[in-house]
Amino acid sequence: MAQVITELDVYAAEVGQRARVAAQQLATATGEQKLRWLKRVAVGLRENSREILAANEVDVTAAEANGTTGAMVDRLRLTEDRLAAVGDSVVEIGQLPDPVGEIMESCRRPNGLLVTKVRVPLGVVFFIYESRPNVTVDAAALCVKSGNAVILRGGSEASNSNQALHRVLVQCLEQEGLPADAVQLVAMTDRAAVGELLKLGNLIDVTVPRGGRSLIERVAAEATMPVIKHFDGVCHVYVDASADEKMATDIVINSKCHRPGVCNAAESLLIHKDAADRFWPALASCLQDAGVQLRCCPASAKGINDAQSATDEDYAAEFLDLILSVKVVDSVNDAIDHIRKFGSGHTESIVTQDLNSANTFQNQVDSSAVMLNASTRFNDGGEFGLGAEIGISTDRFHARGPCGLREITSYKYVVHGTGQIR
Amino acid sequence: MAQVITELDVYAAEVGQRARVAAQQLATATGEQKLRWLKRVAVGLRENSREILAANEVDVTAAEANGTTGAMVDRLRLTEDRLAAVGDSVVEIGQLPDPVGEIMESCRRPNGLLVTKVRVPLGVVFFIYESRPNVTVDAAALCVKSGNAVILRGGSEASNSNQALHRVLVQCLEQEGLPADAVQLVAMTDRAAVGELLKLGNLIDVTVPRGGRSLIERVAAEATMPVIKHFDGVCHVYVDASADEKMATDIVINSKCHRPGVCNAAESLLIHKDAADRFWPALASCLQDAGVQLRCCPASAKGINDAQSATDEDYAAEFLDLILSVKVVDSVNDAIDHIRKFGSGHTESIVTQDLNSANTFQNQVDSSAVMLNASTRFNDGGEFGLGAEIGISTDRFHARGPCGLREITSYKYVVHGTGQIR
Repeated sequence: MAQVITELDVYAAEVGQRARVAAQQLATATGEQKLRWLKRVAVGLRENSREILAANEVDVTAAEANGTTGAMVDRLRLTEDRLAAVGDSVVEIGQLPDPVGEIMESCRRPNGLLVTKVRVPLGVVFFIYESRPNVTVDAAALCVKSGNAVILRGGSEASNSNQALHRVLVQCLEQEGLPADAVQLVAMTDRAAVGELLKLGNLIDVTVPRGGRSLIERVAAEATMPVIKHFDGVCHVYVDASADEKMATDIVINSKCHRPGVCNAAESLLIHKDAADRFWPALASCLQDAGVQLRCCPASAKGINDAQSATDEDYAAEFLDLILSVKVVDSVNDAIDHIRKFGSGHTESIVTQDLNSANTFQNQVDSSAVMLNASTRFNDGGEFGLGAEIGISTDRFHARGPCGLREITSYKYVVHGTGQIR
Repeated sequence: MAQVITELDVYAAEVGQRARVAAQQLATATGEQKLRWLKRVAVGLRENSREILAANEVDVTAAEANGTTGAMVDRLRLTEDRLAAVGDSVVEIGQLPDPVGEIMESCRRPNGLLVTKVRVPLGVVFFIYESRPNVTVDAAALCVKSGNAVILRGGSEASNSNQALHRVLVQCLEQEGLPADAVQLVAMTDRAAVGELLKLGNLIDVTVPRGGRSLIERVAAEATMPVIKHFDGVCHVYVDASADEKMATDIVINSKCHRPGVCNAAESLLIHKDAADRFWPALASCLQDAGVQLRCCPASAKGINDAQSATDEDYAAEFLDLILSVKVVDSVNDAIDHIRKFGSGHTESIVTQDLNSANTFQNQVDSSAVMLNASTRFNDGGEFGLGAEIGISTDRFHARGPCGLREITSYKYVVHGTGQIR
């Protein structure tokens, strides 16, 4: 297929080619070099805070002038404190074990061959994200620590902030003798630029889009390389017949209300009819006291003031808000069927004191995380002990659930022989 | 995007939907059930050998009438012995550990949560392959053993054989109370049918094409789901300055001549100038005695009778035949540069007695398998201890190198709490 060469083509191919060369150099950088770079970055952010905050002020002012909502402006804004937190997170990433070179498995074969499976970087990561500028530093730290070169493409509304942060990242790479192209920031912010980079399946090993559903769907449709997707979650809490009332109440409230706008917040409550008889009215009033609007099936609406009736759209909805769909079910199997029909495979939790129900639910529910007697909010890289994460994958291929350093690596077999032939 | 509904659409969607339902049932089948099924299949192949061989005879006769080459007809042909070997391989797959439910990792978090990473099936595998009918049984055994439903699409020239084998597979599923749709054979053999199935990214979790490059490229371009690719290999043996002459000779001969038509056979020999001075003429004559045609750089051509001169195309070529490209290099780093330029990332081997050379080569060469003092022919599921394999992946994402049972699985996090909230 002949293609018209435009300037964007040429630019994208250059960026990809540079990243590929940097990735080859980075793959054999030592853990010490990468750690020193991360420590330098933390210092660099502090030392350059005045320039960074000034650049951020330009972005914030423009956003306010464009009538951007307060919540969005807040996500965009950097402060001394927030910048210090970004530095802390970089140092934390530095302290995680270096994944590169880890011997994941090994075996000695009967013929004497020692077969080892060794973790290696994926190569080049193309990371597309929306407005929060701290993500620029986090993503660069995660990628370089795992030996990958990264091409960053942030939102246009944060472009001054991102450029200032990127300058620090690159300066520190150069000071450490690491390739400056290990972290590239795509200068163009229009959609066509992303399209050109998504064509470079031969130069980019994986694309990680982080943002709204339309961004992720577009990237998945256009990409010629694998994509790690982070769709949001329609997460369920199922309260079994035998559930302890206090534990169920704590977990439902925490899952729904702790941070309603994130993907591992609960959107739907399934409650066994026996548990509903015991304490649904009390649980409902706790939820309403916490400001939650209830969308109920007929059985759960009975006797509850201000309960709206739930439609199938409600059961499939990711509200990302203080809204909860509720359904009374007859059994754990009914709960599982409902989750199969309406769930998104992100996070489901069962609250129960019954071993059979626990086993059935944990075996049969196929989500990236299935919780027993714990809040859905624990599906998170930090909470699982993986350290920082680039997101929570809703794919089944390559990486599922929280994606930390190891999830952006591959492996190779390194085999030690003494002259073996077949 | 509105799509015209054709009969192929409807048929493909039905096949996909049935596979999805079967996969849900299969995911919770016990290891014992799957083992009993595999044992039944081995018996069934023996008991139905007359029908299977008769069906195969129809395919073989048609292939011969169509002027198919002798080698291709031989790949297509089943005999009592070959059928018995297929049965043995099924029982061997049965005896491998069941991957489903394996706890891959676990940790107890400070708050008491027990976080476990549990292996689960991928779901539905679409397997596209060429004429060898034994692959029908092997692929079905691997997929069902790992809890996946499989949609098989074999070559049209083997369709009678495949149908006869498929009847046995399904009969045994039914006898064992497993879903018959766990193994479906696509009835249509035209290319359009494959296209319709490749559109079903929501029903099929992975496509595995096994065949020539054009098939794999077509599948990779059209598939809306992940693809595990098995491109062939341009594999190198590098003979270092310090190599032992006998070991180098054995490994080069074995890598090139043991089975020249397979992907892990060597296609290119790189030899350090010092080793070339010591024993290249002797090695060359061993190769020529084994019937190998040599395509040489000027330095390696000197003094060798019948040496042709090598072009860049030769260095990039996968001959799959008794042909070897040869190049004298000045150092291990030159060898690595050559491999980066011409290799396909499949299998590379170094023959050396020098620790520095060994380390440099094994660290810097990025291929699915990097061998030290061993034949390239060892890059194989059985030889690595993975058991049978569906192929050797040349991708970096999800699975790399030999793909056995575990490489067609995913995982989920199963978390055990006692009421933890954030």
